Amino acid sequence: MIRVVILGFGNVGWHLATAFHSAEGVELLQIYNRSEVVKPDFLSNIQFSTSIDALQEADVYILAMPDDCIREFSDNFSEDNKFIVHTSGSVPLTELSDCNRRGVFYPLQTFSKGKSVNFLEIPVCIEAENREDLELLTILGERISRTVRVINSEARASIHLAAVFVNNFSNHMYRIAMDFLEEKELDFSLLKPLIYETAKKIATLAPSEAQTGPAKRNDLKTIKKHLNLLGNSDHRELYSQITRAIQSTYGKKL
Amino acid sequence: MIRVVILGFGNVGWHLATAFHSAEGVELLQIYNRSEVVKPDFLSNIQFSTSIDALQEADVYILAMPDDCIREFSDNFSEDNKFIVHTSGSVPLTELSDCNRRGVFYPLQTFSKGKSVNFLEIPVCIEAENREDLELLTILGERISRTVRVINSEARASIHLAAVFVNNFSNHMYRIAMDFLEEKELDFSLLKPLIYETAKKIATLAPSEAQTGPAKRNDLKTIKKHLNLLGNSDHRELYSQITRAIQSTYGKKL
Repeated sequence: MIRVVILGFGNVGWHLATAFHSAEGVELLQIYNRSEVVKPDFLSNIQFSTSIDALQEADVYILAMPDDCIREFSDNFSEDNKFIVHTSGSVPLTELSDCNRRGVFYPLQTFSKGKSVNFLEIPVCIEAENREDLELLTILGERISRTVRVINSEARASIHLAAVFVNNFSNHMYRIAMDFLEEKELDFSLLKPLIYETAKKIATLAPSEAQTGPAKRNDLKTIKKHLNLLGNSDHRELYSQITRAIQSTYGKKL
Repeated sequence: MIRVVILGFGNVGWHLATAFHSAEGVELLQIYNRSEVVKPDFLSNIQFSTSIDALQEADVYILAMPDDCIREFSDNFSEDNKFIVHTSGSVPLTELSDCNRRGVFYPLQTFSKGKSVNFLEIPVCIEAENREDLELLTILGERISRTVRVINSEARASIHLAAVFVNNFSNHMYRIAMDFLEEKELDFSLLKPLIYETAKKIATLAPSEAQTGPAKRNDLKTIKKHLNLLGNSDHRELYSQITRAIQSTYGKKL
């Protein structure tokens, strides 16, 4: 039984707690959060604490706090030589204080509170400084996910950057489409099947094979029509720039 | 029974033929293509033709050709007063010759040959100049799709533009991520669950609620790290521009 304490009850902490709570071979002992939190019903038998001095003895402390808080929290973490792991994509392992055994347990997913996810499908990128700790994280990861990979801090930073493109930036494309259609009093939900299919295509086609549209086929007439249609100058600028990027990638210039 | 002839056997023609072939109440009479095509096995009982003079009598002729060919093909379409519809998102109905009854049958989806789609889930945007023709398109659309909407040419152009953002531009974000990870010899497939979840989130959250990441939370330290990591100057430029767009949308400037 791996005994786990979760430090921080934001989006990541919430989803990890949910996954560990129902995982076999994992005992979720306690959840710490700086301030009082609304305790969800399904975690009613888990101890919540706002005092860092009242932490229980655990095999691993999972620090699920914003990137900026990782160093400070870890420096003040009074328990020497405990195993503490953070959950950030972009923060190196070495940001954690070396008074403790250090590691990373990074679930590669976008979390929103209240939107449940199937943790089994989420890749977990792990890192630790010694073999025993890495083994513990491997077992812990496999309790909740089908995909556990040992990834060092440098590689993890690259994966996190790539994740920004596929998640943050794609989602902003959805946002622009929605804002634009709302201006025109048109129904954004018509686009939802297209959004799903765009993502699903990647299962069988490389993005380079799946690319279609006016930029790819260098259809200058449609591109010009689109630029005229876009009333918002920021949207127009972004349309131009991404169109140019696609044209240049596929060998055609404006 | 609605008798259909498909004109053009590219991606859209292929997928429409597949859908109509197995639809009840639709008789797919013939497929015309300018040049010889490889006839798929499952369409072995359908007549293929490369001669425009050998077209059969049909209730509707569906012109599934590139945007640039629509006007020319329709001008040369010798059958007067037939009902001809194009399948383009961005071309107005009026590009079709007025020697015929005109319409639009625009399936709002991204098609790749060989990648099957569930047509039932694909919204079909229809337009026609008279009530009877619109009724015929409504019935025809409902034979293959759960969502049929009457959309005029102006609104359709806006929907098509929004589709470019959610499909073409998102797919290019996937491409950039893949290229970047390949440079680093890292496995793009780790990102696939994140890509699916990003799209699936839109079912329950507006894109504005689903937005996360360094740009949204104005995390300048991570943004700077990412810009340093990006070796390709085009990728760096795009990262900056989309980051600025997100910051400006969510009220924070660089």
